[in-house]
Amino acid sequence: MRSKGLPVTAFKEGRGFLAQRQKLVRETVLPYQYSILNDQLSGVEKSHAIQNLRLAAQKVAGEEVQGEYYGMVFQDSDLAKWMEAAAYSLAERENPELEARLEEVIGLLEKAQHPDGYLNSYFTVKEPDKRWTNLQEAHELYCAGHLMEAACAHYEATGKDRFLRIMERNADCIYQHFMEECPRGYSGHPEIELALMRLYRASGNEKYKELALHFVDVRGQEPHYFEEEKKRRDWILWQRPEEPVEKEYTQSAKPVREQKDAVGHAVRAVYLYTAMADLARETGDPTLKAACETLWESITQRRMYVTGGIGSTVLGEAFTVDYDLPNDTVYAETCASIGLIFFARKMLELNPLGQHGDVMELALYNTVLAGMALDGKRFFYVNPLEVAPGISGEAATQRHDLPQRPQWYACACCPPNVARLLASIGSYAYSAGEDALLIHLYLDGHVDTPFGWGLDCVTGYPNNGKVTYTFTGGARETVALRIPAWSGNTVLKHNGKTVDLASVLRDGYAWLSGGFQEGDILELELDMTPRKVYASTRIPADTGKAAVMRGPLVYCAEGVDNDGDVFSLSLDQNGGLSAGAFQPEFLGGVVPVAAEGWRTQPAEGLYTSQKPRRERGEIRLIPYYAWGNRGLNQMRVWLPEN
Amino acid sequence: MRSKGLPVTAFKEGRGFLAQRQKLVRETVLPYQYSILNDQLSGVEKSHAIQNLRLAAQKVAGEEVQGEYYGMVFQDSDLAKWMEAAAYSLAERENPELEARLEEVIGLLEKAQHPDGYLNSYFTVKEPDKRWTNLQEAHELYCAGHLMEAACAHYEATGKDRFLRIMERNADCIYQHFMEECPRGYSGHPEIELALMRLYRASGNEKYKELALHFVDVRGQEPHYFEEEKKRRDWILWQRPEEPVEKEYTQSAKPVREQKDAVGHAVRAVYLYTAMADLARETGDPTLKAACETLWESITQRRMYVTGGIGSTVLGEAFTVDYDLPNDTVYAETCASIGLIFFARKMLELNPLGQHGDVMELALYNTVLAGMALDGKRFFYVNPLEVAPGISGEAATQRHDLPQRPQWYACACCPPNVARLLASIGSYAYSAGEDALLIHLYLDGHVDTPFGWGLDCVTGYPNNGKVTYTFTGGARETVALRIPAWSGNTVLKHNGKTVDLASVLRDGYAWLSGGFQEGDILELELDMTPRKVYASTRIPADTGKAAVMRGPLVYCAEGVDNDGDVFSLSLDQNGGLSAGAFQPEFLGGVVPVAAEGWRTQPAEGLYTSQKPRRERGEIRLIPYYAWGNRGLNQMRVWLPEN
Repeated sequence: MRSKGLPVTAFKEGRGFLAQRQKLVRETVLPYQYSILNDQLSGVEKSHAIQNLRLAAQKVAGEEVQGEYYGMVFQDSDLAKWMEAAAYSLAERENPELEARLEEVIGLLEKAQHPDGYLNSYFTVKEPDKRWTNLQEAHELYCAGHLMEAACAHYEATGKDRFLRIMERNADCIYQHFMEECPRGYSGHPEIELALMRLYRASGNEKYKELALHFVDVRGQEPHYFEEEKKRRDWILWQRPEEPVEKEYTQSAKPVREQKDAVGHAVRAVYLYTAMADLARETGDPTLKAACETLWESITQRRMYVTGGIGSTVLGEAFTVDYDLPNDTVYAETCASIGLIFFARKMLELNPLGQHGDVMELALYNTVLAGMALDGKRFFYVNPLEVAPGISGEAATQRHDLPQRPQWYACACCPPNVARLLASIGSYAYSAGEDALLIHLYLDGHVDTPFGWGLDCVTGYPNNGKVTYTFTGGARETVALRIPAWSGNTVLKHNGKTVDLASVLRDGYAWLSGGFQEGDILELELDMTPRKVYASTRIPADTGKAAVMRGPLVYCAEGVDNDGDVFSLSLDQNGGLSAGAFQPEFLGGVVPVAAEGWRTQPAEGLYTSQKPRRERGEIRLIPYYAWGNRGLNQMRVWLPEN
Repeated sequence: MRSKGLPVTAFKEGRGFLAQRQKLVRETVLPYQYSILNDQLSGVEKSHAIQNLRLAAQKVAGEEVQGEYYGMVFQDSDLAKWMEAAAYSLAERENPELEARLEEVIGLLEKAQHPDGYLNSYFTVKEPDKRWTNLQEAHELYCAGHLMEAACAHYEATGKDRFLRIMERNADCIYQHFMEECPRGYSGHPEIELALMRLYRASGNEKYKELALHFVDVRGQEPHYFEEEKKRRDWILWQRPEEPVEKEYTQSAKPVREQKDAVGHAVRAVYLYTAMADLARETGDPTLKAACETLWESITQRRMYVTGGIGSTVLGEAFTVDYDLPNDTVYAETCASIGLIFFARKMLELNPLGQHGDVMELALYNTVLAGMALDGKRFFYVNPLEVAPGISGEAATQRHDLPQRPQWYACACCPPNVARLLASIGSYAYSAGEDALLIHLYLDGHVDTPFGWGLDCVTGYPNNGKVTYTFTGGARETVALRIPAWSGNTVLKHNGKTVDLASVLRDGYAWLSGGFQEGDILELELDMTPRKVYASTRIPADTGKAAVMRGPLVYCAEGVDNDGDVFSLSLDQNGGLSAGAFQPEFLGGVVPVAAEGWRTQPAEGLYTSQKPRRERGEIRLIPYYAWGNRGLNQMRVWLPEN
């Protein structure tokens, strides 16, 4: 069954776990990131993103440009993602100061836009004669896509259309160039495709869908556009002239319908797949749908970490090969898991299978949340599953696996990406089919359905497994509620009466057909018993090991809870796990888990034939998302089991 | 007690394990490598090393040069190492054809040498105006060092001094330049230092020792020579002008006496340390000795694989940080373990500690022997401890970890290095102090001591632990026999009477004082019980795992012996090991080991909460050096133990 997402305004946050993160984004992350984007915070990597736009506005106005462009070629996109997050937060609650800041930036965008609709601060300020000449590297369409998403979000959230009109003019300019003048070109970094689909829905203008489909179709065709472009162009950003075009990296090694494995730059991959799935849903093209299913399986069955992280290597920030999932040299970029959530959402809208929702939840509650410190002011770009201070961040192969979160990055794609995802999480939790509401995530708060009725949800999830929905109106329509595959013993009640799950469960969703009255109550009780998880023996890195999960949360052992040494710990193969009481003051409120295990006594020297002595010991585990918030220390997800 | 090595002519090989390798080198490896160096073998990486020399000879003679230089800037060194190996083999047995080939190449060297003694085919043919202007990268002194070593070997082995004289003239040219004209310069790749010490001993000329010490002393001083050189020079080989000088890579980050950790390019490191230890022995300089001991400990106590491999990363072919010893992304270059053997030999000559001999033996019987296929015609440059076809050699992070040995390499340093080490292994087995013969390795064959008496050694080591020495002359002097730390239950008999080991064992050597008669027999019986070895829990890669060893041999599980899947195997923590009977026809003659263990049944999907079923199973293990000789398949040294 096809469904479609609800507008961000349909959801009002409650007081639960994710609502706390949304509040953090609203109250801390957005002002903090604005101060960086506006160069008001010292001691962090400089952004200059807003200033770049001011310079572009001066240039377009024919004024003297008061300074130089600074930062990555895609610096505009950091600001765009922040704008998108800010817009969502306005949907949740009014904030005149933030609204004014947004209007100011929108005003700058308006001024920085050329009369023909072109809008990009890098090219306007720094390379005015080089527009569209380096699609492989220069992120022009990528930046445009992020601004389009922000514009759609702003329109959805506020109903104001100034920003939307700017980006429609920009999209028209792009349409003109790529449908007429340069019909073989497409972006080295996918993003415009999924953004055009949003713009199509916000504006109702079919030509944006047409352009999105065109960009997807033309990608990877031979003769290869980037090879031809390279011959024509006399400038580079990174790639040396003598090097061949990185086709996997730019997601252009093959036409999209011929791709069988998730390869290359992981963020680019999932951004592309998101648009493919959206178009498959929109057009009904079975070949596009089949390609999405193949790529989904490639990721989730062979190339994904237990934390929902993707991209095994820093080299090209990329997927590698099946079952190559090292825990220490891992990349697992925060943005890649965010993109995986985008892809999962579109796969759900295309076909609601529990596995799509389970993966969405896994990536969200583990890698994405780990990407931001509990205080909202530090961020991981890379999300290792194992950290040994002295090695992590130090060894040549692990320079990128930082053991602590930095405040900002020269390439700052992840921090505002986390913000926009969390600020709009309600729109991921629900989608609506023709006559059904689909519930993908359990979010404390209220949702208004397009059918005229609403649901109040109260839950302490994921700290506990109890989720209660109350109908705020009578409902003819079906409610399809995701039942996670990990929940062994699930109880679902309708007005206190237990529902026979077996009879309603299909593909990971409980399908409850209509006839709900206002005030009806659905109670879901998920099985939050902590459990050990085992990896396929095809993953060399995880053999002989187990990870601990509880609900959707992966747990980890941190040195600070385990006498400073997690590498001498092992799980007892017959040992139990026990969840502690909810600790509201610990790490922002967590349920710690204790595991029966062993501590191996340190031996002399590097290698010994003496079997090391070991003692029984309790292993103290915390949710993975909360690691790295208590100073430099060890961390490990996969523990030997013996 | 200081000792010094015996000449290569003092040892005559018998029929034992290493003698078979020496025979293989003589009969197969040397002709095979010559055919490659002389471009007579098709389908392998081209060498052109001999042809480069012919071109250089034409150039020096003022003739028209008939072709172009081909290959690495250090192509001369491949040939030099082959010449050194060939010379050693002549010490073992006459071979007029090989001798003629050597004479022909020596003749070419003579013709390629400039009147001032300069000798280097790359600079002579390709860059005649750039002599000594890129010491950081250009390997000029490195190539000279290898040719000096070859000349010394040829002189030692044959008594003929034509080659030696050529290299003395070359050393004089270098002395002149570096002691007088350019006294702050030194080589980016150490080698000349240890070679000059050999040349000093072969020629008796003290100035070569003086130059070796000068090169060691001047290294790493500030202002930094390579930084100054880089400013002066307008050409590069690899390093881009905007990059800083790679000081650790070139072993020049600090003056040698200030170095505390083994860092940078592993081969460069141990070649340097070898010269340092040799000079410490020769000069008695306690600061140099202390530096060697510190660096020895850094390697062997914190940065060495259980196989005696060193260099954890392909990035700079380098050491990384303490305890970073990944088994799959490992580098562990064959040449680095050869260099570790050089260093160990010089440490032994400086101070005979069992640990030096144990490490020498470990590196020899595992990494170095693994570097060459059993047929002598394929070679590993990189020696992984874990190989999963599909990942190894494929994943971006493991491109260098090939699962099968290639025939040759564009950078072919390792193959002839193995040949020269094996061809001269007798000179590593023994050294002589003032009044003692020190026995470091157990080699079937005969040794003549400088004291006028000899020893016949008969042994099936390392396939069995029995070593019998028969005196071929009366001996006043002490015999010090290494007793490996791994031998738990060692029996030593003198003429059938058990020696009280405790009373004679000191620092890993049994010191048996004089009074031996001709025909006296020493019988050593080492404990060859297979054993499990455990790594320090500080090594994240090996936690929860054990390796299996027997004598000096590390064992591994190969897919071909284990139903095609070693990654689902684990050792039983209470399970035994059993050594099989010696199988003379299997892998060139090995003792296989079987371990009691488990096979985990493959589970569905990537991760599962179902504890995977497992069944008891026998794990079949072979010596690590013999892996990769039966087609593409899995291999693993460290196995989970549970």
